[in-house]
Amino acid sequence: MVDVGVAADLEAVPGLLPRKIAPGTADFTQGPAMTRDQAMAALVTGAEVARDRVAAGNRCLVTGDMGIANTTASAALICSFTGTDPADATGRGTGIDAATYARKIEVVCRGLDRHHPDPADPVGVLAAFGGFEHAALAGFILGAAALRVPVILDGVIAGAAALAAVALAPDAVAACFAGHRSAEPGHAVTLGYLGLRPLVDLGLRLGEGTGALLALPLVQSAARALRDVATFDSAGVAEKN
Amino acid sequence: MVDVGVAADLEAVPGLLPRKIAPGTADFTQGPAMTRDQAMAALVTGAEVARDRVAAGNRCLVTGDMGIANTTASAALICSFTGTDPADATGRGTGIDAATYARKIEVVCRGLDRHHPDPADPVGVLAAFGGFEHAALAGFILGAAALRVPVILDGVIAGAAALAAVALAPDAVAACFAGHRSAEPGHAVTLGYLGLRPLVDLGLRLGEGTGALLALPLVQSAARALRDVATFDSAGVAEKN
Repeated sequence: MVDVGVAADLEAVPGLLPRKIAPGTADFTQGPAMTRDQAMAALVTGAEVARDRVAAGNRCLVTGDMGIANTTASAALICSFTGTDPADATGRGTGIDAATYARKIEVVCRGLDRHHPDPADPVGVLAAFGGFEHAALAGFILGAAALRVPVILDGVIAGAAALAAVALAPDAVAACFAGHRSAEPGHAVTLGYLGLRPLVDLGLRLGEGTGALLALPLVQSAARALRDVATFDSAGVAEKN
Repeated sequence: MVDVGVAADLEAVPGLLPRKIAPGTADFTQGPAMTRDQAMAALVTGAEVARDRVAAGNRCLVTGDMGIANTTASAALICSFTGTDPADATGRGTGIDAATYARKIEVVCRGLDRHHPDPADPVGVLAAFGGFEHAALAGFILGAAALRVPVILDGVIAGAAALAAVALAPDAVAACFAGHRSAEPGHAVTLGYLGLRPLVDLGLRLGEGTGALLALPLVQSAARALRDVATFDSAGVAEKN
């Protein structure tokens, strides 16, 4: 667990890496959510975490994230990178009512109107809208891809981060598995844009790595099938006529 | 692994239960594939295997099967129990060509014409068309359900067996999880008829329990989430407004 931007001081506990960039991001309807330097720092932090996890012997990375209101930031990122209409990329997150949902779409629209995001400037897009978790996850994905280690993406937040990662380095998509398809509509848009087929599709919307972890045994099974299962040739089975 | 009807003598090897009913079934276009007594014996064998597996401490059972040409028998069973047209329930199995596929459909039609299967007589339907594996799997499912142990079904062969099990004891469906949806068209028909949603849907068509095993970690995760994960109440998290 990596604290890249919790808006409170956290006690040191085992398993928590203190890598806070700042205590929370800013309101993207009023200005950029973070500075470019902050976005770069979060990207580098994510890449360093991936590097350290791989150095520790892990051969498959899995994304997870916790963040408040981060489906809103994800929707803005997804619209920025894919050109999707905010009404099609914004979902009900934790289960907001219709009025709050309308306001959420409107907030995304206001953000897009204010920042005129340029998908050719992925760091600028992350700075405009991202949570620190988005930027750190984008770095984590890039770190995994650079080391040729597969990374299983969780839901819509990881998907939005993957769009930023792939905008920075298109080949990074080859390292990505879509762990699942979440119930958030922006996630289906994202997976379609990235050309990723989700391994699990059970209408989950929990986040925190749950969907990606469910897919991990499937990826492990696929790797074992490729490596360990006998072929007709190796087992001396006659081909059918 | 249970030998209920391999058409050859098998050496004793660890892990192989010798429970052969007969060395192979008969051609269902010429007569019933097995006698009613043989169908009953295979059903009982499957139920006994489930009972023994549960007695050994297993709390979730998984089906698997090996059999030659058993997608043809499965198609005939699926048509018998669901009333589906043979063209919609018959698939290409191991990848047969168009002419063989047409002949496969025609074989299923001839079997149905010959036996006039009555879905209200599930043992008769199994005897008419079944492989021994279908009857044994149906018994296995009934044995698991009777002991209130969940059973994860593999693909189209297990699905055809589940139709027989559920025809015998409708409540047995409550014990069944559809591990995956196979590429065989009869399997989608079967899952729809049983009202089961597949946990994995990756276009697999291998059989031998592979699809069910892929779903096992998902079922285990769901059980752990229900049992071990804190609720908002238990963790003292404030409800949202």
